Amino acid sequence: MTHTPLRDTLAEIARGDITATEAFDACAAAIEAREPEIRAFAHLDLDRARDALPGRAGLPLGGLPVALKDIFDSADMPTTYGSPIYAGWRPKTDAAVAARLKALGASLVGKTVTTEFAMAHPGPTRNPRDPARTPGGSSSGSAAAVAAGMAPVGIGTQTAGSVIRPASFCGIVGFKPSFGTLPTAGMKPLAPSFDTVGLFGRAVDDCALLYDLLLGGDGAPIPPAAGRLRIGLVRGANWSEASPEAQAALLGAAETLADAGHAVEEIRPPASFEELDAAHWTIMAREASLATAFEQATAPKRISASFSRLIADGLAVSAALHAAALAQMNAARAEMDGLEAGFDLLLTFSAPGPAPVGLEFTGSPVFNRLWSALGTPCATLPVRTEAPAPIGVQLVGRRYDDASFLARARAVEQALAA
Amino acid sequence: MTHTPLRDTLAEIARGDITATEAFDACAAAIEAREPEIRAFAHLDLDRARDALPGRAGLPLGGLPVALKDIFDSADMPTTYGSPIYAGWRPKTDAAVAARLKALGASLVGKTVTTEFAMAHPGPTRNPRDPARTPGGSSSGSAAAVAAGMAPVGIGTQTAGSVIRPASFCGIVGFKPSFGTLPTAGMKPLAPSFDTVGLFGRAVDDCALLYDLLLGGDGAPIPPAAGRLRIGLVRGANWSEASPEAQAALLGAAETLADAGHAVEEIRPPASFEELDAAHWTIMAREASLATAFEQATAPKRISASFSRLIADGLAVSAALHAAALAQMNAARAEMDGLEAGFDLLLTFSAPGPAPVGLEFTGSPVFNRLWSALGTPCATLPVRTEAPAPIGVQLVGRRYDDASFLARARAVEQALAA
Repeated sequence: MTHTPLRDTLAEIARGDITATEAFDACAAAIEAREPEIRAFAHLDLDRARDALPGRAGLPLGGLPVALKDIFDSADMPTTYGSPIYAGWRPKTDAAVAARLKALGASLVGKTVTTEFAMAHPGPTRNPRDPARTPGGSSSGSAAAVAAGMAPVGIGTQTAGSVIRPASFCGIVGFKPSFGTLPTAGMKPLAPSFDTVGLFGRAVDDCALLYDLLLGGDGAPIPPAAGRLRIGLVRGANWSEASPEAQAALLGAAETLADAGHAVEEIRPPASFEELDAAHWTIMAREASLATAFEQATAPKRISASFSRLIADGLAVSAALHAAALAQMNAARAEMDGLEAGFDLLLTFSAPGPAPVGLEFTGSPVFNRLWSALGTPCATLPVRTEAPAPIGVQLVGRRYDDASFLARARAVEQALAA
Repeated sequence: MTHTPLRDTLAEIARGDITATEAFDACAAAIEAREPEIRAFAHLDLDRARDALPGRAGLPLGGLPVALKDIFDSADMPTTYGSPIYAGWRPKTDAAVAARLKALGASLVGKTVTTEFAMAHPGPTRNPRDPARTPGGSSSGSAAAVAAGMAPVGIGTQTAGSVIRPASFCGIVGFKPSFGTLPTAGMKPLAPSFDTVGLFGRAVDDCALLYDLLLGGDGAPIPPAAGRLRIGLVRGANWSEASPEAQAALLGAAETLADAGHAVEEIRPPASFEELDAAHWTIMAREASLATAFEQATAPKRISASFSRLIADGLAVSAALHAAALAQMNAARAEMDGLEAGFDLLLTFSAPGPAPVGLEFTGSPVFNRLWSALGTPCATLPVRTEAPAPIGVQLVGRRYDDASFLARARAVEQALAA
């Protein structure tokens, strides 16, 4: 599928080369064609969005559909957080990102499928690149919608690997910004120490443009990253959990980048990072068990078996263990700041391999937990492989330097596409 | 007013020395006597709580009333966040702390007054120690309710100084735990980088007991802090903003602690901390402006003038400035970890002086922002002074070591009471 950059589509609308209605209808046609099979949406109302289009066409996002994960509150659409407990629930408010998207002129055509409370229990969504496979999760619907051309960009959330993994599985770009930059207000919390709003697009610049607009910027292009990048290749302690295809994709990307003139050097992260996967789990399980106290008290039987296990794990984590894991996380974040001073980017796995076949298991976040714990900006870029389904490689940048990170990610994207 | 420790009241109920109804009614009598003047509650329903008492009497909190700030969602009571935008709003869920309080057998007799969105615009609450004065804010009602004997303990939140300051003004103990330990799920966010659930009580142990129970502990007493404490006295860069009474109270407390055998030494925080007040404001203003996007879009005229100014300030903070302030905050947190290794506690101001006269201004958080930015545990303890209204002193501890902090704060409390 050819990809028209979001920036170009918006420029075409602004110039009148195409109308907002035509641009909207191209997405609507993709939804009508593929949604019955893909099931990216938990709620969908194209007619309502089309009726509202005239008021949005002149705004920065020109009435284009944006896929919004159903973990965010919406005042004018049902909000379920992927849980039967919330069937038919209509919040009073829009989540901050939803309100911002509307102000920017996005068409919120519906809410995209999330796994239950953004954890493991899957929804019905299929992978548009191979409907026999999972799209990944928890941001299953937003990743699938963007991959299927239903929306040029989408919004998800990541607590462990819920943006990077589905983007990798669906063959698109996923971007998890630095922790704490996009507002989480109105998002159902899972583990607030990690919960991060993330973006999907067909290219790095699509995510960069949406990110800038959401943060209140004017959408000006990020200046290109100049010259030779110092790239640290991280095989990491979990190397053996990556499939041969993922290993080949990562080493192939490293080679391509070196061939393009970038300085690629394999690095070993500090040994302390090897304990962060466990710390991440400790923190996430306890915080998820605390955050869902109401559901546990009022509707325990409508919580899935897998989420119930997470709660049980979390309730077994003492306050002291949680605090010790938070201290460990903060120490590692400081260490990461030091490590990254020597590199422009790190390059590592996005996921253990192509998307698993079947819809029951949305895949493992084994290659995402560390970076979620560190709060760094991350992006996954699809690479060309011989694998039967898409594979991405993950870039990791310096915390709070997201604009530079995105510029460098674009340079990598160009080198990989060459 | 004499103070029966929460632990003793619960033991008396458990032993049958008093009934849960008698204990509840003592609080209810204080509410009936003083609420018409004090106005601690935004919503109050004593009859409903009394009807539910039989099911709660045998649980750890024995049906005792707990004051819950109206910044937390409640499924069975109105929730307004101190804003007319939410008049009559009834959420679908209980906030995590509300659900936990119910599971512990607390009686939620109502919702206590919060300033608008936990910022500056005041509610109608008066200071029980001098009704001509503000109780402080933003957790105005919870602090006043505990000070007036309407509930033995209460729940508030602090983003700048919203727990420590009202507790100081009302002559009670306030405790802000380390950032991220108590769950914020179901709390209206103000600035998620700082938003912290905090507690009010008549003594340190009341807060310690409630904290332990909320975190899933068994409520066992914290072992006493052994021996001589190394206490760092912090006059700080804002010394001149403290009133003569507050200066005298702080230096008097330092002297009392030294006389009691503790090692009190004046210390100068790193110069970099002086920039943290500005960084705190930058982060808070931007995050508050992002978090309230829905209210800005749908009901801008029902936002107060002061909150509208905060939003305007926040919208003027760029994403890059916000990120730089977050980086500064994290660097300072690491520096604080080092500084505190040399001390058991820091001792500083809770507030610039006694509560201001009048209800329009809830007081300045000038002595709270730094510690909210650093994410450390803090407590304010009332001290005996000649001032016309209560004054507290603030203790600051090591992040993520809250149990030790509370034990040390109790030792200070004993020394100050001797």
